[in-house]
Amino acid sequence: MRPALEEKAAALDAADPLGAVRERFVRDEDVTYLDGNSLGALARSVPGRIDEVIRREWGELLIRSWDRSGWWDAPERVGDQIAPLVGAAPGQVVVADSTSVNVFKAVVAAVRMARGADPGGAVRDELVVDSTTFPTDGYLAESAARMTGCALRPVEPGEVPAVLGPRTAAVLLNHVDYRTGRLHDLPGLTRAVHAAGAYAVWDLCHSAGALPVDLDLHGVDLAVGCTYKYLNGGPGAPAFLYVRRDLQPRFDSPLPGWTGHREPFGMRPAYEPAPGAGRGRVGTPDVLSLLALEEALTVWDGVTVEAVRTKSLALTDFFLECVTEYVPSGRVEVATPVPHGERGSQVALRCEGAAAVMGVLGERGVIGDHRPPDVLRFGFAPLYVGFAETERAARVLAGALA
Amino acid sequence: MRPALEEKAAALDAADPLGAVRERFVRDEDVTYLDGNSLGALARSVPGRIDEVIRREWGELLIRSWDRSGWWDAPERVGDQIAPLVGAAPGQVVVADSTSVNVFKAVVAAVRMARGADPGGAVRDELVVDSTTFPTDGYLAESAARMTGCALRPVEPGEVPAVLGPRTAAVLLNHVDYRTGRLHDLPGLTRAVHAAGAYAVWDLCHSAGALPVDLDLHGVDLAVGCTYKYLNGGPGAPAFLYVRRDLQPRFDSPLPGWTGHREPFGMRPAYEPAPGAGRGRVGTPDVLSLLALEEALTVWDGVTVEAVRTKSLALTDFFLECVTEYVPSGRVEVATPVPHGERGSQVALRCEGAAAVMGVLGERGVIGDHRPPDVLRFGFAPLYVGFAETERAARVLAGALA
Repeated sequence: MRPALEEKAAALDAADPLGAVRERFVRDEDVTYLDGNSLGALARSVPGRIDEVIRREWGELLIRSWDRSGWWDAPERVGDQIAPLVGAAPGQVVVADSTSVNVFKAVVAAVRMARGADPGGAVRDELVVDSTTFPTDGYLAESAARMTGCALRPVEPGEVPAVLGPRTAAVLLNHVDYRTGRLHDLPGLTRAVHAAGAYAVWDLCHSAGALPVDLDLHGVDLAVGCTYKYLNGGPGAPAFLYVRRDLQPRFDSPLPGWTGHREPFGMRPAYEPAPGAGRGRVGTPDVLSLLALEEALTVWDGVTVEAVRTKSLALTDFFLECVTEYVPSGRVEVATPVPHGERGSQVALRCEGAAAVMGVLGERGVIGDHRPPDVLRFGFAPLYVGFAETERAARVLAGALA
Repeated sequence: MRPALEEKAAALDAADPLGAVRERFVRDEDVTYLDGNSLGALARSVPGRIDEVIRREWGELLIRSWDRSGWWDAPERVGDQIAPLVGAAPGQVVVADSTSVNVFKAVVAAVRMARGADPGGAVRDELVVDSTTFPTDGYLAESAARMTGCALRPVEPGEVPAVLGPRTAAVLLNHVDYRTGRLHDLPGLTRAVHAAGAYAVWDLCHSAGALPVDLDLHGVDLAVGCTYKYLNGGPGAPAFLYVRRDLQPRFDSPLPGWTGHREPFGMRPAYEPAPGAGRGRVGTPDVLSLLALEEALTVWDGVTVEAVRTKSLALTDFFLECVTEYVPSGRVEVATPVPHGERGSQVALRCEGAAAVMGVLGERGVIGDHRPPDVLRFGFAPLYVGFAETERAARVLAGALA
């Protein structure tokens, strides 16, 4: 007789409405991949599409592909593919550059919006940033503060409402903490930022493609996010930038590149920004990665973010259940919040010697990652992770810790 | 009997020491491709390499490839492949982001260097920029000026020495004018900038891979350049940034991203830049394009920039000879300088109705491009363009103008 949790896993897999979607990905039955929150898996249709892009569109059509193969419009077109996954109506998302570069654009633009909204009002010279953020956001926010004459105020997300005031220009927050997997209160914090007359910039790296974001519904001002985690765009695929429609005319980018110009091929000496989200573009689009991402996004055909969220919570609940059952008491501490409303799509466990433990897991075919000093991170990408392998991962973890 | 210029073309092709290199590229015998200064051709080995990167490195090794497949170090490694092509010793070139983004990094860093070099000296608050530049350089320089409190002084390159002075912080110049193909005096202008105590930033988009640049020899401070033109990296491949070795400790980037950190996986809240050119990195490297570029650069095996320059001048000389012979007098005006020392690797012809003329050429299998208002641009990429097709292009042009 199989152990009870193996039975349960089999039943959960059998009842999984997203089970068939797993076949859209390249998978290795010997590996349990719980690092899709760092690099998403390869969709089966991507290699063939990129071979066509390289051989036919680049190799044969050459320069003509900017027009004929739709390369030029890809940043906006792929942005519109991402838009429904983050709750945005079309025309507000553009795909370009890295998340880091987009953080800089968004934060500087937010400070300028805050100052432009009420030129005779209070001096808005404070930039509030999540002190627990993924470091690059903090580094870029610091640079944005330095270059716009703001003071940087790093605080924990829960403390943000308490520090907001008439001097707050903008607030940079993470929807899901990269380390603990904690889901922050996007609607409530956005309302608090707006009540202070400031602008909210959200980093969606660890939520886009994993759970509903509802940018339009909650009136978020600006957002950035990664496409190579839960959106499976491939290593280093370009990031996205959301600029709410009514704010677009006031989006004054610190990186006004030629491809974001109203008339890019007019070769005009003066910069005039494009009318829509396209003004967030800077240089020549990175075609190979952009079109790999476009193809990867076809795995979402017939899949809703709500269904993904339901499965994500079921996976992380089940993993926590297995860890509780298998891992000797006291060996790990669960760093991820248990309430569903506070949990992203990963489970973080603190333990001694986390780096070495993750090394052993890797040797035994369970891939997660380690974040210093003591965190084991297990990401659950509901499009391709199943319950049986989730049970196995917990069992292997228990063995590694034994 | 063949016309004399066809005979001459055949003789030039037969004697071309780079003739065999043409076979390293995918070529269409029915098309004369004179737009490699906009998008370089596809090297034959690239599709297979990228298929391996996608299927094996991404699809199978997944996150492990950052280490095992050498993804993480690719920006510096590919930078070191480019270095000898621009006359730089290793450790000074990094591949990342777009040219536009690198212009912003370099210009802001140059202004900061100028101010840091002599804190008690004159106020350096002027940024000089080539007024005939490719527009994006001007737009980004304007943003850099705005964010560092500089006044922007756009002047023609020949006028630069006259406007330099104790207030000049930095000067942004193009090695080759994108429109006319004029080659500017990099050694002399760099000397003039240095004599004024300012810093020189060179844009090498239209010279890297086409002619010797000799960055180290001429003491250039900072440089940026494109990899999808004469370096054949593919559409939107990431650009490069050169930071002279002795200036690296003072390179204070306005885009301090996590991958340019001294210890990127330390996840430290404070930014500490990496010791070398790697501090020019920002976000996660764009792996697909970076490795396509790396593979494309293998076409340079056994090829010197000097040999490429010799052939480039022979090609543009021959094209001008054919145009003079075939095109009725007065129909076009040669905008590219005739002296070799002032010519890049393209020929620009001004003519009425340039856009329509280029349309006709395209229909007849000759691909160049048009830059407003009245310029026909023909780029000569010596690695894959031959003399017979150069003669044919001039003949087709004459027919289109008849």
